[in-house]
Amino acid sequence: METIWQNVYAARARGMSSSVIRELLKLTEQPDFISFAGGLPAPEVFPVGQVRAAAERVLTEHGAQALQYSTTEGYRPLRELIASWMRDDPRHRLPACGVDNILITSGSQQALDLIGRMFIDPGDRVVVESPTYLGALQAWSAYSPQYITVPADDAGMVVEALEQALVERAPRARPKFIYIVPNFNNPTGRTLSLERRRKLIEIASRHGVPIVEDDPYGQLRFQGEALPSLVSLAAGRGPVNAAYHGNVIYLSTFSKILVPGLRLAWVCAEPEVIAMLTRGKQGADLHTATLSQMVAYEVAKDGFLRRHVEVIRRTYRERRDVMLSAMQEHFPPSARWNRPEGGMFLWCELAEGVDAAERLRAAVPKKVAFVPGAAFHPCGGGENTMRLNFSNAAPDKIREGIARLGEVLRA
Amino acid sequence: METIWQNVYAARARGMSSSVIRELLKLTEQPDFISFAGGLPAPEVFPVGQVRAAAERVLTEHGAQALQYSTTEGYRPLRELIASWMRDDPRHRLPACGVDNILITSGSQQALDLIGRMFIDPGDRVVVESPTYLGALQAWSAYSPQYITVPADDAGMVVEALEQALVERAPRARPKFIYIVPNFNNPTGRTLSLERRRKLIEIASRHGVPIVEDDPYGQLRFQGEALPSLVSLAAGRGPVNAAYHGNVIYLSTFSKILVPGLRLAWVCAEPEVIAMLTRGKQGADLHTATLSQMVAYEVAKDGFLRRHVEVIRRTYRERRDVMLSAMQEHFPPSARWNRPEGGMFLWCELAEGVDAAERLRAAVPKKVAFVPGAAFHPCGGGENTMRLNFSNAAPDKIREGIARLGEVLRA
Repeated sequence: METIWQNVYAARARGMSSSVIRELLKLTEQPDFISFAGGLPAPEVFPVGQVRAAAERVLTEHGAQALQYSTTEGYRPLRELIASWMRDDPRHRLPACGVDNILITSGSQQALDLIGRMFIDPGDRVVVESPTYLGALQAWSAYSPQYITVPADDAGMVVEALEQALVERAPRARPKFIYIVPNFNNPTGRTLSLERRRKLIEIASRHGVPIVEDDPYGQLRFQGEALPSLVSLAAGRGPVNAAYHGNVIYLSTFSKILVPGLRLAWVCAEPEVIAMLTRGKQGADLHTATLSQMVAYEVAKDGFLRRHVEVIRRTYRERRDVMLSAMQEHFPPSARWNRPEGGMFLWCELAEGVDAAERLRAAVPKKVAFVPGAAFHPCGGGENTMRLNFSNAAPDKIREGIARLGEVLRA
Repeated sequence: METIWQNVYAARARGMSSSVIRELLKLTEQPDFISFAGGLPAPEVFPVGQVRAAAERVLTEHGAQALQYSTTEGYRPLRELIASWMRDDPRHRLPACGVDNILITSGSQQALDLIGRMFIDPGDRVVVESPTYLGALQAWSAYSPQYITVPADDAGMVVEALEQALVERAPRARPKFIYIVPNFNNPTGRTLSLERRRKLIEIASRHGVPIVEDDPYGQLRFQGEALPSLVSLAAGRGPVNAAYHGNVIYLSTFSKILVPGLRLAWVCAEPEVIAMLTRGKQGADLHTATLSQMVAYEVAKDGFLRRHVEVIRRTYRERRDVMLSAMQEHFPPSARWNRPEGGMFLWCELAEGVDAAERLRAAVPKKVAFVPGAAFHPCGGGENTMRLNFSNAAPDKIREGIARLGEVLRA
């Protein structure tokens, strides 16, 4: 996820002057402004009552513990619950996953940061899709990697091009890892096909390059069939609870299935990697808020989230459909877009030569915004692309916002 | 603050084998073990009822907001409240301090990390006292600075030695900043004298080196007169609320005056520095848990903490006194220690040639622990010193633990 501020910083890095940005931001604060630029979940579906009841119970029954310092690895019952999800979820089926495979982080943003902190030395190569998730680039900018970009199409990263990129560079400069968002990618909403998943695992393993699988949206599939996670495809089959070992560092988060404001996410990786990241986290923030962890555990322990994600999926599916049909009605015929099977974003390509950043400048006075796609391309390109978020606005706002945007794009 | 794990990592870095450490740790889990090794506040004084009532109000009145993503800088009413403290607290008196001077961080540990992330390039020099706070060294290890250590005595950092260190190194290798814990220092409990504060500001300003003032314990003075903070001594006198500008980055935290488990601290610095650290925080964890921030604001907004710190001070003062009188009774005559006027730690020097780490190995089977002081010396030394925490154990436990420890030290 990112706030509008994150996109603003990215836009600045991509050449928009900060005075232009300040002006744009001031305009987005108007009450009838409709923004498709953020990456926020729908607050209407937050289970506020459950969280309130959980906080009440936690603070009544374990008040001192919930407010004291706790261990860097995270609240043990919550880690155990997550390990059980990784064992039982049909997308994962990691029978060996145990508590030593799980680290709680202060949002996935921190997991990305810790990976950079512990693994990236200045000048190290990191493979990313293009376009890719901005938050990862921002987390790693402190560690000065070089990016090898691999193009993506409707079936996700073009792994054949990855093979070539690795052959050209390795072994002199073998990348530290491959970073990928395989499900309902941010920014594009695209999903890596099963065939490519298998091929990616095979190529990465043959070249000895680990994979960072960032999966915030995997649970938000509202259409089509779930695909196995990379972490499961790469796993050796060990004894139950004996500890997962494998080539993948898997990240996911409570931000998209519960609420983001508690700042809770997790890493699943082999115990040695978890130990390294834990050492990094100790220097970064000591531990994640104890109260957040205990409240999330209290909400989640009896299977509430399994039912709750159904509500989220229904809500987002409706919003996606409203956005798609409004685009059909209002966008120029030269524009092309995809139909994501889940997640929070869709991706639109304008006619060759159209500058989406320039279109944004024209859109903001009409009280509608999106993120120009160039920001997500670490090595340039994508000037005629745009990312649209459909999770945060109500259906009638989506209709109205897309109509305004269509007017700008057709002008 | 640090957990026992932090001290363990430090001990490992200073040469204790991890199997020895694992064995020690297993022993500390015994029910009648008494540890003076941690840095935990007393959970008995946590205002659990206030926090619970605040959480209830926040989640009833602003549920969706408290659980949604929020801005990187922090919850604005909380930043405004802290700015008012910085204006009004007699230790600070920063009339110009406004909301743009304040960044909320996920504990002071994160503030230290962000300072490293934004200011330290590999090989940069950083001035620290010796001994100094371990958490700072751990935060910065990711950024590979070189440390210039300045000795300390009972009146804190020997600033005359600082002058010499700066003259010798500058201007070829001017340090990035000077790091200091001026009040009830961790690990020593020492406080920098007023005269040295003035001199430190003068020297730092003459050499053009900024200061990082880490002040987690400043409010925990239970004896003697409060001394002005470095940030206030270094401030130009600007118009009220117009924004503080000055040479000092000031850090403090809710961990010692409210509770640590919410992970809430703040930075007060000039707006340009706050903007830089905010950019760093965006890559590190996006923002601090919204619920934590809103709950802390709700608890603190009507002046509750002013009354509450009185309870903490009374409690810690009693525990310090109990520890001091037990040490008088049980410790060998060759040991020397100080009498801190506040905070959570005191510092003990054993006879020359006694190895405190070796004494710890003998103490643990007697079910008592402390931190050997060598761990806090980034460039070596201090083998015969130990840090004792007096905030976390109840008075009768302190008496019993010090009696056990005295036996080990006299053996």
